[in-house]
Amino acid sequence: MTDLAHRFPNNPLLSPADVMPSRPGLGVLGVLNPAVFRFEDKIWLLLRVAEGVPADSDSVSAPVLDPDAPDGMRLVTVSRDDADLVSTDPRFFVWRGESYLTSISHFRLAASDDGVHFVVEPGPALEGRGDSERFGIDDCRVTAIDGCFYLAYTAVSPDGFGICLASTDDWRTYERHGMVLPPPNKDGVLFPGQVSGSYVALHRPVSQGLGGKFIWLAWSPDLRHWGEHQCILRPRSDRWDSAWIGAGAPPLRIPEGWLEIYHGVDASRRYCLGAVLLDADDPSKVLGRSRDPIVQPLTNDERHGFFDNVVFADGALANGDELIMYYGAADERVCGAFLSIREILAGLE
Amino acid sequence: MTDLAHRFPNNPLLSPADVMPSRPGLGVLGVLNPAVFRFEDKIWLLLRVAEGVPADSDSVSAPVLDPDAPDGMRLVTVSRDDADLVSTDPRFFVWRGESYLTSISHFRLAASDDGVHFVVEPGPALEGRGDSERFGIDDCRVTAIDGCFYLAYTAVSPDGFGICLASTDDWRTYERHGMVLPPPNKDGVLFPGQVSGSYVALHRPVSQGLGGKFIWLAWSPDLRHWGEHQCILRPRSDRWDSAWIGAGAPPLRIPEGWLEIYHGVDASRRYCLGAVLLDADDPSKVLGRSRDPIVQPLTNDERHGFFDNVVFADGALANGDELIMYYGAADERVCGAFLSIREILAGLE
Repeated sequence: MTDLAHRFPNNPLLSPADVMPSRPGLGVLGVLNPAVFRFEDKIWLLLRVAEGVPADSDSVSAPVLDPDAPDGMRLVTVSRDDADLVSTDPRFFVWRGESYLTSISHFRLAASDDGVHFVVEPGPALEGRGDSERFGIDDCRVTAIDGCFYLAYTAVSPDGFGICLASTDDWRTYERHGMVLPPPNKDGVLFPGQVSGSYVALHRPVSQGLGGKFIWLAWSPDLRHWGEHQCILRPRSDRWDSAWIGAGAPPLRIPEGWLEIYHGVDASRRYCLGAVLLDADDPSKVLGRSRDPIVQPLTNDERHGFFDNVVFADGALANGDELIMYYGAADERVCGAFLSIREILAGLE
Repeated sequence: MTDLAHRFPNNPLLSPADVMPSRPGLGVLGVLNPAVFRFEDKIWLLLRVAEGVPADSDSVSAPVLDPDAPDGMRLVTVSRDDADLVSTDPRFFVWRGESYLTSISHFRLAASDDGVHFVVEPGPALEGRGDSERFGIDDCRVTAIDGCFYLAYTAVSPDGFGICLASTDDWRTYERHGMVLPPPNKDGVLFPGQVSGSYVALHRPVSQGLGGKFIWLAWSPDLRHWGEHQCILRPRSDRWDSAWIGAGAPPLRIPEGWLEIYHGVDASRRYCLGAVLLDADDPSKVLGRSRDPIVQPLTNDERHGFFDNVVFADGALANGDELIMYYGAADERVCGAFLSIREILAGLE
């Protein structure tokens, strides 16, 4: 089985070894799921950098942001002998009834002149701050609106994960606009400009029992306050997106409407990428959807890593018919690929 | 053990037998969780009326709103022999992987001259409409703002449950403002007016793993779009509110700040009512919280019904030191009680 991606020959573009840890004592576990944007004649990635202290046979550790701690971070380290520890998954543990993550993510900039070779900055661009980001920030999408760059990202804390918004016009100073969509929610993506006089976003609440991990659309007068929520896309049984879905890159305006790249997961927890075409004037109307994945985990980089069998895109650039996609591979590294928009549209049903 | 409530001697004020079914073939299973407001020199309740077809030994049924069906509703009836049926709880079942509710709720007005004897209108005031309300609407809170009544309620559908907003100034025609907080969320409560130049709401997202059923606060420029979400109140271990909590009545402005009546549930699924005092100028600041419940299920009406051991309030009226509370009892009927605000404040810690 194959897909529509023409992968860069020098994949992976970035791996954990290419990234300096943000603090002594932490190791980079993954560099993944970048936002992508053009700025000052370069192509930039805003990388998710996941750091942690590798678990050993004696203990597990969780990094927690704490403004009162040295370096602004403390480690919660729990002996594996502790009777109050429940540790069944390498990504998290439960201690004394509270959940902790074994890694913490921040955002790091990387720049490229050719879109293929990237130089990673030595320190974070944006780190978690405040009660709602104590467990870090991850999976950013960058959308340029009215000459400003907006960062929609997932904020993680003991109170849950929700979608926060920040903005910048120089990529040196950032304005934070708080949590715009409450938990449990992630995969928030802003459209590049207004539609019918309002700003538009896609988001992915997490419901159990009634509902599920479906894609919703919302409207806003000011990007900071959201309403008019509607469910627009659900998983499809017996397909590559049968278990859950979530929005990916900021929607791309093409003559046919809005082209949105989204991720779909099947019952085996395999993450693929597909496309959905939304109506130009009313993007709550779904016009078509990829019958088969446009990118699926096929290479060794994509099949084996921190979490196996994952391709996950938060950004893409268009150049005529060419879609240049930068994506996380196996939750550990960054890869790139070219796709043809025409071929993507031909695969919609 | 006792509480602070001086119960009306004629409790329950309303029972299912007092309410006409909205459609032939449906029975009223519960009348509960009323919003309360003053209008045209009367005291009004906006009741939640839960209807359904009683399950029998052969089948289970779910009423689903459908504009294409006769009477706007169809019944999904599944034989108990069906291999694709999972039915373990009288409130819902799962069939072919989809969840269904065995009852559907709408809102019904009831009026009273004395606040004790209520006359229930013969038909619904507001029913579910559209995709996000296919399984009905429930647990409304009514807040008067700038001369208009705003209804914040829970909308239920196969896509999950979220908080919708409607408004009216005559209680005959209603304007719908859509879903203002996406799933999974309920217990949305509007403050009666602006605080520091913005509208304010409490809401209760449902997170699993990270976070839980905690009370959040949000801000809005226009009541229809919300942002700046903050978690302000969490359950307390080994207390009456140890398992989960949710906002109840619209906050009441008293000299000490905002007095909010909320519900708390313990590990045995017993629902009690307590109070939290929020800062007048910044209601995200919690000033005090009831050490013990102010109302707990003590009477037979409150202890035995559709769901045992529940007192649940969506509205209250103040008259000097007196708080007049109308509340759902055992998810089946409506009761009333007087409380002293001074006594409630004395029990905060």
